[in-house]
Amino acid sequence: MRDMQRVCVVGAGAIGSLFAGHLGAVVETSVLVRRPQHAQTLNEQGLKVTGKSTLQARVLASTDPAELGDVDLVVLATKTTAIEASMATLQGHFPNAIFMMIQNGLGCEQLVRARGDWPIISGLTFMSGVKQSDSHVDYELDTPTWIGPWDLEPDRPGFEVIQQVEQLIRSAGLLCEGYRDLRPVQWCKLIFNSAVNAIGAVTDTPHAPYYANTEQLADLGNLVQNMMAEGVAIARAKGIELSGDPWEMNCRAVKQGGSDEGSAAYAHVTSMLDDVRNRRPTEVDWITGSLVRAAREVGVAAPYHETLYRLVKAIELGWSQQPADH
Amino acid sequence: MRDMQRVCVVGAGAIGSLFAGHLGAVVETSVLVRRPQHAQTLNEQGLKVTGKSTLQARVLASTDPAELGDVDLVVLATKTTAIEASMATLQGHFPNAIFMMIQNGLGCEQLVRARGDWPIISGLTFMSGVKQSDSHVDYELDTPTWIGPWDLEPDRPGFEVIQQVEQLIRSAGLLCEGYRDLRPVQWCKLIFNSAVNAIGAVTDTPHAPYYANTEQLADLGNLVQNMMAEGVAIARAKGIELSGDPWEMNCRAVKQGGSDEGSAAYAHVTSMLDDVRNRRPTEVDWITGSLVRAAREVGVAAPYHETLYRLVKAIELGWSQQPADH
Repeated sequence: MRDMQRVCVVGAGAIGSLFAGHLGAVVETSVLVRRPQHAQTLNEQGLKVTGKSTLQARVLASTDPAELGDVDLVVLATKTTAIEASMATLQGHFPNAIFMMIQNGLGCEQLVRARGDWPIISGLTFMSGVKQSDSHVDYELDTPTWIGPWDLEPDRPGFEVIQQVEQLIRSAGLLCEGYRDLRPVQWCKLIFNSAVNAIGAVTDTPHAPYYANTEQLADLGNLVQNMMAEGVAIARAKGIELSGDPWEMNCRAVKQGGSDEGSAAYAHVTSMLDDVRNRRPTEVDWITGSLVRAAREVGVAAPYHETLYRLVKAIELGWSQQPADH
Repeated sequence: MRDMQRVCVVGAGAIGSLFAGHLGAVVETSVLVRRPQHAQTLNEQGLKVTGKSTLQARVLASTDPAELGDVDLVVLATKTTAIEASMATLQGHFPNAIFMMIQNGLGCEQLVRARGDWPIISGLTFMSGVKQSDSHVDYELDTPTWIGPWDLEPDRPGFEVIQQVEQLIRSAGLLCEGYRDLRPVQWCKLIFNSAVNAIGAVTDTPHAPYYANTEQLADLGNLVQNMMAEGVAIARAKGIELSGDPWEMNCRAVKQGGSDEGSAAYAHVTSMLDDVRNRRPTEVDWITGSLVRAAREVGVAAPYHETLYRLVKAIELGWSQQPADH
């Protein structure tokens, strides 16, 4: 059994704050942030959680990992687009820690490995929350975090380590499920996200009921279905047995919110659409882009993923070429 | 020889105004418009052309074709999205006229045929102008209009009729070229427009040099190339010998404006991008959509065209589901 008494959460956006706020209630918890003012606020006021949990945690915060002492577990909770910068700061620190990742998409583990030889646990989270301030996060959806060994490593952490981390997170009041093989659930979610996020970003539309329409030639559901079928073919060629059917996930999701004429229609603004609307770099390289690269590895044609990947990248490129107010 | 002494121009946007302003200087010209105020202004002030031509033409304008008498030639100069409404007005009128079309895309002729048995000339125009007011249009690009017989009709107008219309338009001071078979140039332009317009509309970017970049996996030029190659395959399956290579047209176009670091980069806002930015229904059904339908007819797979078609249609659908200010 490894020690699991000291945790460092890297990044304190909504997800990082939820982890730090809960873990801070049961183990010694530190937080690595980017802004000195953010660190000062956390050191002075701690971290308050409202919503699905009611907590007030003390945390030690800094912009410099050297000030946080040694830890047993690092929860990397930055967006994919911030990992490079975080890892440059972390290189050479926390020599005895395990790293746990919860980024959207696939392949961020390599950015961690490039900076050190920590054991790496892959993961994905369905939790959601809204940051009210640097010291207060509102816990909205108490849905689970899924973790498992990073599949590329021969000497990856054993299942007993996964279970230990699962227990720690559960003891803090969060939902967590450990898997011997994460890929069946990870890829299912990845294929779903790749289509729904990229299509939403390029059409400027939230995930909505017409994402499941397939009756007319022009209906968007046909594209969603084509893209998800392509993702399933890539997974199959990689030898991954999916835990479910992404297209069925899509149809179930858009049926939320009631089908009555009068009730408010389901319309979920995905993170990539939110990024595009606010002209922030998206995570498309790690979501749709990671499926494009996987398809090339296994020699599967991926016209739909390549198309959506290039469209989102072109949107980002366009921002650098023209002013916001056209 | 047919008579070509009386022309009616339907629609007086920039292109319609350019035709009416030039033709009005050489033959009896009437204009069918939608707004009574527009008709009144034209009847009182005539139509002024500045820029590449300097003209002041008298025209007879009305919102009702019954007030315009009989004509020999109708120049249908509305956008594709307005043809249905115009043709509902025109049904039963101008029994001796030939109809000449200059819409973007493919297939608008069927909307004319559905309302009457006039002979139909297909066409496309590269002219551009800017309407300064209801009675004044600025002629910017004095590029040609290409006309030819509508290919679907067994009893289509002979080449001598095409030549007669060509002569009439040239005599009015506009460039025009008549073709025995319009399809080689029409499809070349269609394939070009389908990719450049749809990609611009979904990425919110003008046609710019990076539309020709193909070095990196994420580069947009790869998609442009894929989409144009697919268009060429559809044309080939339809037995159409293209007049040129749309991908070369793309590369040539984006090299305009100089390649010096200091010079202003080429950036053309396509009509479909302009429509999307102003939340106007686009012409995608007649451009990218017409290639999707053609591909189905000849049994050619068209994943790129289907994808871009559905994305543009989803953008339009999104407008009806959410307010402009999100």
